[in-house]
Amino acid sequence: MERQHLSSVYESDLQEIREKLLEMGGKVELMISDAVRALLERDTDLAERTIAYDHTVNRLELEIDEKCLEVIALRQPAARDLRFITMALKVVTDLERMGDKCANIAKRAKELNCEPPLRPFIDLTKMAEAASHMLHDALDAFTRADEQLAQKVCAGDGFVGRLNKQIQRELLASMMADSSNINRALKMNQVSKCLDRIADHATNLAEMVIFLVKGRDVRHTVGEN
Amino acid sequence: MERQHLSSVYESDLQEIREKLLEMGGKVELMISDAVRALLERDTDLAERTIAYDHTVNRLELEIDEKCLEVIALRQPAARDLRFITMALKVVTDLERMGDKCANIAKRAKELNCEPPLRPFIDLTKMAEAASHMLHDALDAFTRADEQLAQKVCAGDGFVGRLNKQIQRELLASMMADSSNINRALKMNQVSKCLDRIADHATNLAEMVIFLVKGRDVRHTVGEN
Repeated sequence: MERQHLSSVYESDLQEIREKLLEMGGKVELMISDAVRALLERDTDLAERTIAYDHTVNRLELEIDEKCLEVIALRQPAARDLRFITMALKVVTDLERMGDKCANIAKRAKELNCEPPLRPFIDLTKMAEAASHMLHDALDAFTRADEQLAQKVCAGDGFVGRLNKQIQRELLASMMADSSNINRALKMNQVSKCLDRIADHATNLAEMVIFLVKGRDVRHTVGEN
Repeated sequence: MERQHLSSVYESDLQEIREKLLEMGGKVELMISDAVRALLERDTDLAERTIAYDHTVNRLELEIDEKCLEVIALRQPAARDLRFITMALKVVTDLERMGDKCANIAKRAKELNCEPPLRPFIDLTKMAEAASHMLHDALDAFTRADEQLAQKVCAGDGFVGRLNKQIQRELLASMMADSSNINRALKMNQVSKCLDRIADHATNLAEMVIFLVKGRDVRHTVGEN
């Protein structure tokens, strides 16, 4: 009876970590779409709200860290649960850095909104949507230990990387053509790179899922083969 | 007697984690100076060796992760030791990403070495040295739980950030002056940003030390006050 009780408290602890991770991920997804919308729709208010919103994501990082430490200390989880919790500690760091990237995009949006528009970059919307989906699927895969979904996320990283390279080429051409474009093109370049980095972070998460499920570490194997 | 034995094995486990972290940090320091030297001395061989060396840093990340998990599972550390080990798990992720940034610098060096030199950037050496010192001190502070040293590292981040902004301004001027500089200036821009990110990672480590020592989380407080 005592054991039953302990086990259900423990399960609810793990569930709380899962739910908080999904909550934090949901907030980062919102930040991605808001930051890019603030740029494309030239909405400076939305840019400012996105920058301010980063604090909420930062606070969740600290809360999840504390919860993970508490569960390790009080419940002494073994094997797979321990792996899940220690990976969760790394996942929150990636999520927090994604939030930082969104705030960076919003800061560039604020600056760019004060100048005439450079030109519409339709691929930025595509990149933002793809990066956001990758994050969503990666966290889903993490909380459900779904290795197939994680593999799908890893495969998606190339798509965002190619869009980033394409945008960088277009921006370079625009700078070459007219030096009055340089300042704005550099800022757009940063936006595109931030989205690329967000996709990289999502890939990091997906690699942790494969580690969790298979107990085999695929981190670093992609770039090294 | 049994207890004495267990405790000394446990202490040697913690010592092994400390030593491996310092080893990994030393390798990243080497990568920082080699990557920047490959660029400034136009040494493509050194750039290639730096890129290849990243695998050694990646391997250490996996080794330290495994060791931390093993110690948590077998020794069930409490309170401060548990905080140290879970922070070590985050520290290795930061170290690994610093190694990635060095490999990026070396890749840009390889490309830039095929083109005529843009101009000497003396500040890049200063930035690299400052970032490298920050990393060294942050890891030293982490393994010795030295809060004062950690505070010093946090204070140093502004210096590197200002050098980065200065270099970015110079590069912008050089692009504006002559569009044939744009391609190379964009690559130098990336190098400068990589060094800035390395300093940010070192600051992350130092903030974890303050968390470890004071049990109070200073992460996010700098940007939010």
